[in-house]
Amino acid sequence: MAAFAIHPQLLLDSHCLGRFQVCHLLLHKNAVLPWFILVPETDVAELLELPEKLRLSVMNEASRVASFIKRDLNYPKVNFAAIGNIVPQLHVHIVGRSPDDPCWPAPVWGHLTKTADYPVARIREIIITLVKQFGLAATL
Amino acid sequence: MAAFAIHPQLLLDSHCLGRFQVCHLLLHKNAVLPWFILVPETDVAELLELPEKLRLSVMNEASRVASFIKRDLNYPKVNFAAIGNIVPQLHVHIVGRSPDDPCWPAPVWGHLTKTADYPVARIREIIITLVKQFGLAATL
Repeated sequence: MAAFAIHPQLLLDSHCLGRFQVCHLLLHKNAVLPWFILVPETDVAELLELPEKLRLSVMNEASRVASFIKRDLNYPKVNFAAIGNIVPQLHVHIVGRSPDDPCWPAPVWGHLTKTADYPVARIREIIITLVKQFGLAATL
Repeated sequence: MAAFAIHPQLLLDSHCLGRFQVCHLLLHKNAVLPWFILVPETDVAELLELPEKLRLSVMNEASRVASFIKRDLNYPKVNFAAIGNIVPQLHVHIVGRSPDDPCWPAPVWGHLTKTADYPVARIREIIITLVKQFGLAATL
């Protein structure tokens, strides 16, 4: 897997935070909602076609991100999806949602029009918490 | 789990096809795309908070549905999501997608405006294939 490269469109849309055991962790640049993207190192395009053991690892890493969103960021709901209609490389979305967010109850994909940027210091805080409490190996 | 009941909104939107080991299988009434919904018998609201063993079973059952969509219905892509912003009962969407479908590349949620009904005979055919090849226990 030495040649694995994250799809350029995902890199364009996101900040790279680091990696867990099987997935790279990205943070969508739109700071309106906590929107994380996991990219497993695989050439399989569909979450539901991954070998069971790898899929289990991906789901476990997604659960860690969901815990961070709910427990540390205090979002009451998490949306989870593997879509891939535009970027073919397998990636899964884990998005914190709240009834008072600007897109509720619509899913974010194609509905979230408001945008905001993360201050660099905020990205570092997120990375530090994920490293300390959720086993992230940081990119920085 | 004797008291488990599928959320009335899901029943209103879907045809009940039957059940696998841990999930009820529904077919969204909109026949424009093959849109299946799995409802595990649990009171946990989040896919990523399910006990690992149950989540593994849900994902395995979702994989069977994805196989049916790709292999039997010849759709090249599957979209998978657990959203639940409107219906709080845990349910996962497994949707067959194709570049020539009327909603591509947008996800179906909030974007699929075209509608069509299933003929009853078509629903029976789908159930029969799922029973014979994918281990569904039919509701009919």
